[in-house]
Amino acid sequence: MKTMVRAMGIDDAPFEFAHEDVMVVGSLVRAPNYLEGILSTRVKVDGTDATEKLIRLINGSRFVHQARVIFTDGAALGGFNLVDLKGLWTGTGIPVVSVSRDEPDIESIRDAMRKHLPDWKERMHIIEGGETHTITTQHKPIFVKVEGMDIREAGRLLELFTVRGRLPEPIRISHMVAAGIVMGESRGRA
Amino acid sequence: MKTMVRAMGIDDAPFEFAHEDVMVVGSLVRAPNYLEGILSTRVKVDGTDATEKLIRLINGSRFVHQARVIFTDGAALGGFNLVDLKGLWTGTGIPVVSVSRDEPDIESIRDAMRKHLPDWKERMHIIEGGETHTITTQHKPIFVKVEGMDIREAGRLLELFTVRGRLPEPIRISHMVAAGIVMGESRGRA
Repeated sequence: MKTMVRAMGIDDAPFEFAHEDVMVVGSLVRAPNYLEGILSTRVKVDGTDATEKLIRLINGSRFVHQARVIFTDGAALGGFNLVDLKGLWTGTGIPVVSVSRDEPDIESIRDAMRKHLPDWKERMHIIEGGETHTITTQHKPIFVKVEGMDIREAGRLLELFTVRGRLPEPIRISHMVAAGIVMGESRGRA
Repeated sequence: MKTMVRAMGIDDAPFEFAHEDVMVVGSLVRAPNYLEGILSTRVKVDGTDATEKLIRLINGSRFVHQARVIFTDGAALGGFNLVDLKGLWTGTGIPVVSVSRDEPDIESIRDAMRKHLPDWKERMHIIEGGETHTITTQHKPIFVKVEGMDIREAGRLLELFTVRGRLPEPIRISHMVAAGIVMGESRGRA
């Protein structure tokens, strides 16, 4: 049974702030790393449409009935286009786990947003929602937020989908695909 | 040692003949199915640049020193933009194996090309180059052409990279990525 667990992993492509929008890729993976499908959409750089776009992308696909969990690479796409993790969970019915390899530096984020985003207070509200847990995979810490399941189950699923390095395969694959399509060649990441 | 064998798989995205060009994706995979990198380029629909574009794409990437073999899905991209398998081998130094699930219908190809491609004879010359072998994987036949290695070694590598269905993972992944990016959602194929 274990190997029939599927997860959706979300990551965005490299972008420049002069761009209007950025490519976002979703990979449906059967544990631990068998790719079963690819989704793609675009969200605005520093926009506010990430949560809604992801809900529409996933609910509009056949994968909505297959994914046990959605892994996101952090909780922002295209700069500060924040993913409301709780909104993504309730909007899709699929539990959400955000994964960061670096501890979120809330002060720096606040300073950066305050400079050029008039609605920075609302965005901070989204960022500060939920609790950040530290999980150790491959002897290194990752920083995790969870909506829709308990942290132990999230840790078990992260372990199930992590093959090398600290990122689960669905995120690693989405990162590679997005970068390879937009840049012509993906760069390593583990 | 077996698991450190890497292959590059090439496939194109869905396209319409009204389009000028079509996306082509290359996936570098470590046997049997660990994705290590993604490349992308574009070739003209019904054009003649496929071989040159693939050589440039692969030689310009760090993967040229890693791939033991290049798998291509058939020997045409974007309609009748033919891949000269021998040219791809000699241009990259990497042996090439083209894989088709359907037996090539040379007569139909000739008829279709003759209708709207003035240089159809040159293209037929490329298509008719090399010998087509039939290999049985997963109890079903696939049709294979090989340049730069013997057919037994090609069969061994195909087996090494085939997880489910008849297509080796590097081709299956490239197909899924190209379709998912261009269409927004990939469709199954095995």
